[in-house]
Amino acid sequence: MEKIPILRMGRFLLVTIQVDMHDRLAMQLQEDLTNAITKYNARGVLIDISSLEMVDSFIGRMLANIAGMSRILDAQTVVVGMQPAVAITLVELGMSLPGVRMALNVERGMQLLQQSLASSEGALLDENHQ
Amino acid sequence: MEKIPILRMGRFLLVTIQVDMHDRLAMQLQEDLTNAITKYNARGVLIDISSLEMVDSFIGRMLANIAGMSRILDAQTVVVGMQPAVAITLVELGMSLPGVRMALNVERGMQLLQQSLASSEGALLDENHQ
Repeated sequence: MEKIPILRMGRFLLVTIQVDMHDRLAMQLQEDLTNAITKYNARGVLIDISSLEMVDSFIGRMLANIAGMSRILDAQTVVVGMQPAVAITLVELGMSLPGVRMALNVERGMQLLQQSLASSEGALLDENHQ
Repeated sequence: MEKIPILRMGRFLLVTIQVDMHDRLAMQLQEDLTNAITKYNARGVLIDISSLEMVDSFIGRMLANIAGMSRILDAQTVVVGMQPAVAITLVELGMSLPGVRMALNVERGMQLLQQSLASSEGALLDENHQ
């Protein structure tokens, strides 16, 4: 079971991280996720980390990498479900997770993605009209 | 990280099983799920088993238990993402997962839940009108 499942929800992909991440698993997830974005023409990625009781620099870098790769493929990444204690530790350690957007839970994350998708498509329409 | 996260999506709950289940974890999941159903007033439970490469009688019983408990709490359960090889093995072993509904993926499972919710609410309205 050494593979993190990627669930498709309309134009978004949902990943729930519940196992200890290690190098190979993180690489596999990044590869699977980029493949899934192109295959399903996804516009957003939701990563749920509500089971993680600790986010270290390795996980932080993985989240930033995923956000970066998704951005290049024209999909936005939102990390949801961070535990309060994790947020406290992150700030105390000076890790700011640059380029990664956050939301309280999956529902709010999906709203955030839908809003930014709608506004980016609106901007595209405006451009075409000019 | 010995806890399987339960994600809330509107009136439905989503659980992704990606770790080896054992007794205590299965009990914990059943307890968390029944609590979440009542807390969020959920009407449906989606269980994604796409990472499972094997469904033995223990997992089968757990799925049937969850479906039974949810039904008592007025929520329907749909199991999604079963791998083809798992389906073959289940039938060969004579396990039919009674009382558990299936769908190909999360999207279809959610459609199934929405349809049966709409029809049950329609029936309720009809009853009230008579």
